[in-house]
Amino acid sequence: MSQDVSRPSLSDALTERLLDLIRSGGLRPGDRLPSARELSQRFAVTTPTLREALRRLEATGAVRMRHGSGIYVGSDLERVVIPNPNVGRLKGDQLRQLLDARMLIEPPLAALAARRADPVDLARLRAVLEAAGTYLDGRDAELHEANMAFHRAAARAAGNAVLDEVVDSLLSVHSSEQREILRIFDDRVRDYDEHQAILGAIEKGDEAAAEEMMRTHLADVKCVVEERLG
Amino acid sequence: MSQDVSRPSLSDALTERLLDLIRSGGLRPGDRLPSARELSQRFAVTTPTLREALRRLEATGAVRMRHGSGIYVGSDLERVVIPNPNVGRLKGDQLRQLLDARMLIEPPLAALAARRADPVDLARLRAVLEAAGTYLDGRDAELHEANMAFHRAAARAAGNAVLDEVVDSLLSVHSSEQREILRIFDDRVRDYDEHQAILGAIEKGDEAAAEEMMRTHLADVKCVVEERLG
Repeated sequence: MSQDVSRPSLSDALTERLLDLIRSGGLRPGDRLPSARELSQRFAVTTPTLREALRRLEATGAVRMRHGSGIYVGSDLERVVIPNPNVGRLKGDQLRQLLDARMLIEPPLAALAARRADPVDLARLRAVLEAAGTYLDGRDAELHEANMAFHRAAARAAGNAVLDEVVDSLLSVHSSEQREILRIFDDRVRDYDEHQAILGAIEKGDEAAAEEMMRTHLADVKCVVEERLG
Repeated sequence: MSQDVSRPSLSDALTERLLDLIRSGGLRPGDRLPSARELSQRFAVTTPTLREALRRLEATGAVRMRHGSGIYVGSDLERVVIPNPNVGRLKGDQLRQLLDARMLIEPPLAALAARRADPVDLARLRAVLEAAGTYLDGRDAELHEANMAFHRAAARAAGNAVLDEVVDSLLSVHSSEQREILRIFDDRVRDYDEHQAILGAIEKGDEAAAEEMMRTHLADVKCVVEERLG
């Protein structure tokens, strides 16, 4: 029966016990867990069983393992929603629906950002756009990252962590497809200008303008993607 | 070095190869994978390594293992967004933000449902509410499941799979908290009546009414939760 990988697993219970250890110990993302040797001893399990439980937690962002360094609490531990780490290349329809999802969620978040952004949020948005400005000379990979960071920072400024996670998940998943499409078809300067205009509306606290500009901007992105999917 | 659980793992590569096997084989959720024995042989890996990779894929819904039966493609394989399987008890603020997230997403989806729901969607919504009606006599666990199923069915009727996944993730995660809160504080009949009214608006194709009723309904739910957290 050693081949029966589906038997109810010690690692199921161990996963729960590791999560309890993190929570009851008040450990936060970035904090270090006891070593693998200590964990094996504490829970009286073999290394393969421990590995199984840790890999499971790693796959969902609850822990992070660094070769030669140790085991740390992951940044996604307390998230409500996470991107699917197994997602493959998105089909055309999925990409369209993903952009429609962004068009439903991000414009009202831009309005909330205009209402609630604090100085730290505004500084973050400005820094991200400033970086983007320096990449317009053709450093497309960096520009793409900076553009995605702008959308993340705008969502974050709205002050709802759950919606922030949703937007982050949507951006993470379609990043590679979008990068490729935008590399071929996008108007980099127009994107940059639209981001600047959105930031301007958020800075002025103009909720209606921020929402409308974000909507128009994402509609432009969708046009580019539709053109490509043709 | 056998204690070094963090070394770059064979199971990382194996996870990718298993996903490739599923995708290139055109396997769909529910389809059966080769047996563990065959997989171990095909990829020339030991059972612990295979287990590690499979548990990882299982944690994120890409495969499902049934004791004594085999390994199947999981229903979440192609999702963009998944609920965090490690999420603990939600804190009060998380619960508030989660309800705010639902209030931002579900009302426009109800409007879309009113515009686009097909006969299958409508039949599903009616069946779910009919079931809920039979649980009003005090079967609270069943009633709660039926109520969540109504929200899922309404999101699904909007026709955007990505937003459907987002709503499903939000409902999955706070289900236990919400169940407890509603058990103590909720007005079951009012909830049921509000769901009926939303369905009525969707059936009539009245987008504005469906959106507004869903918003009012979720605001009522939030009031109940606030009262409890208060």
